[in-house]
Amino acid sequence: MNGASRAVVGIGNALVDVLSQASEEFVADQGMVKGSMALIDTDRAVALYGAMGPGVEISGGSAANTMAGIASFGGNAAFIGRVSRDQLGEVYTHDLRSAGVRFDTVPADGGMPSGRCLILVTPDAQRTMNTYLGASAELGPDDVDVDLVRAAALTYLEGYLWDAPDAQAAYRFAAQVAHEAGRRVALTLSDAFVVDRHRATFLELVEHDVDVLFANEAEICSLYEVESFDDALQHVSRHCEIAALTRSEKGSVLLRGDEVHVIDASPVPGGHVVDTTGAGDLYAAGVLYGLTSGFDLGRCGRLGAVAAAEVISHLGARPEQPLARLAAPHLSG
Amino acid sequence: MNGASRAVVGIGNALVDVLSQASEEFVADQGMVKGSMALIDTDRAVALYGAMGPGVEISGGSAANTMAGIASFGGNAAFIGRVSRDQLGEVYTHDLRSAGVRFDTVPADGGMPSGRCLILVTPDAQRTMNTYLGASAELGPDDVDVDLVRAAALTYLEGYLWDAPDAQAAYRFAAQVAHEAGRRVALTLSDAFVVDRHRATFLELVEHDVDVLFANEAEICSLYEVESFDDALQHVSRHCEIAALTRSEKGSVLLRGDEVHVIDASPVPGGHVVDTTGAGDLYAAGVLYGLTSGFDLGRCGRLGAVAAAEVISHLGARPEQPLARLAAPHLSG
Repeated sequence: MNGASRAVVGIGNALVDVLSQASEEFVADQGMVKGSMALIDTDRAVALYGAMGPGVEISGGSAANTMAGIASFGGNAAFIGRVSRDQLGEVYTHDLRSAGVRFDTVPADGGMPSGRCLILVTPDAQRTMNTYLGASAELGPDDVDVDLVRAAALTYLEGYLWDAPDAQAAYRFAAQVAHEAGRRVALTLSDAFVVDRHRATFLELVEHDVDVLFANEAEICSLYEVESFDDALQHVSRHCEIAALTRSEKGSVLLRGDEVHVIDASPVPGGHVVDTTGAGDLYAAGVLYGLTSGFDLGRCGRLGAVAAAEVISHLGARPEQPLARLAAPHLSG
Repeated sequence: MNGASRAVVGIGNALVDVLSQASEEFVADQGMVKGSMALIDTDRAVALYGAMGPGVEISGGSAANTMAGIASFGGNAAFIGRVSRDQLGEVYTHDLRSAGVRFDTVPADGGMPSGRCLILVTPDAQRTMNTYLGASAELGPDDVDVDLVRAAALTYLEGYLWDAPDAQAAYRFAAQVAHEAGRRVALTLSDAFVVDRHRATFLELVEHDVDVLFANEAEICSLYEVESFDDALQHVSRHCEIAALTRSEKGSVLLRGDEVHVIDASPVPGGHVVDTTGAGDLYAAGVLYGLTSGFDLGRCGRLGAVAAAEVISHLGARPEQPLARLAAPHLSG
């Protein structure tokens, strides 16, 4: 079982993103914290959707975006997540499979409709997310495809899922299966508010079950309740084999023991940031593709930077250009 | 009834566009004629969707796009078209209303799902459309809101609708209601193949019921079965009060009796054509907004050119920037 697998399996929310332009005033008037993710219920989803401008629907979900990125690099990726047997679920399944990601989770019959994320993109290209989980919240341990997890070099989970109770159990189960098969487990903290809501369980997980940790500056500082990024670095290097920490336009820092790589952000194709949705997801795709390809940590970080730069150059959180082509200078030699 | 209305009501297909990048080879291998529209049934829709790459969903439909354009100019626009009571129907209704278009057609219960148009965008920014009409084909005379048509200065129909039998009856009824109220009727021929399928009834309609005709070069030549654009001009000026004829990057020609305006294409914002979907629809929006505002024909054509240039600068067939702002130099004075 512990063979030379390069496959990655992601477990996360299956959400169709509904992207809409919005003013700073609209975001403030709706009581949102710009740049963050809030969970919303059906009533709020209906009210907010009614107030929003025209939308563009693009399949998303953090870990699924990462898997689409790995496939775009030419890697082997699979996804576990729940949609309902409805139109949005069909769209979601089509988009993920046609991006080259294996996706076999059986759609739920009856129950809640497929989940969606109402994303407001402000003129500064920042995204503010309002997630109606729907069927996505129904993910549980039974959905974890044990053979898939055992066969994958790495199992990757998004922290967003931590808000769904059965999903926590699903992740703990997947982590156990992966480790028993001698595989690695990766986690992204996803959002500073999610970390704040679940700090104790996240800390426990990071200390015991996570080999590769992804976080941005706000998330890692929130996890350890420290003020500075440098303080957070001290903590994280004690707990995880590898940490990959993003800092927006300042690039990223990757750590393994006392090995540190400081990586610049890559130039954005076209020179213009359109929509930051998916930046962290695609950074993770580059790093995970690099790790499972046996690349050194610095090169993994550079692949992450290239993927993040591509996805912020257009609307939506999945790559539009083949990352294998964009990253070619970093892949050869 | 024949008061100073500036409202326009559009009647057409209610379709969610599914846009996907495709190679020239894919379009050819699938037996499509690049740049045209083909009607597809359920089986073909499933097969083609399965073969297509990941998609972006944006509400569309030709006449509805035109109405969204008129609203974006600050005009008064309404739409009549059929969706089903399903997720895509909800998305469609939201997007049209939030664009400022009145849309009160009651969604169909049961029956076919909401219609969609699978659009392949090739690297040259051309779009090739495959329409699954679904609930949209169920439009009939009963859906025509008589008060809305009577009150509107102009009723606008898309030729695409000609493929749905009850919709022909709906349009004839709407034209009759409009003319009895002393209003004008406009038609866009939509597609050279649609014209070819329905030449006799289109000719009859153009000669007797259409006051304002929109067509591109291929469509108007097909209608009159002539080889040259100049020959087509001779024919059309005898039948319609106004004709607005588009010629892609060569701009457009507008005719009223012996009055002729030759209008250049407008510069594309950002300088780069991304997706030509909706170019004709938005050209019509500018012309109709101008006509119902009492502008001279040349100015109407320039508004059309500005609107068309905006919509081809991004993915999707609805304006992303307010046309009232983009067209401000042509609106004042």
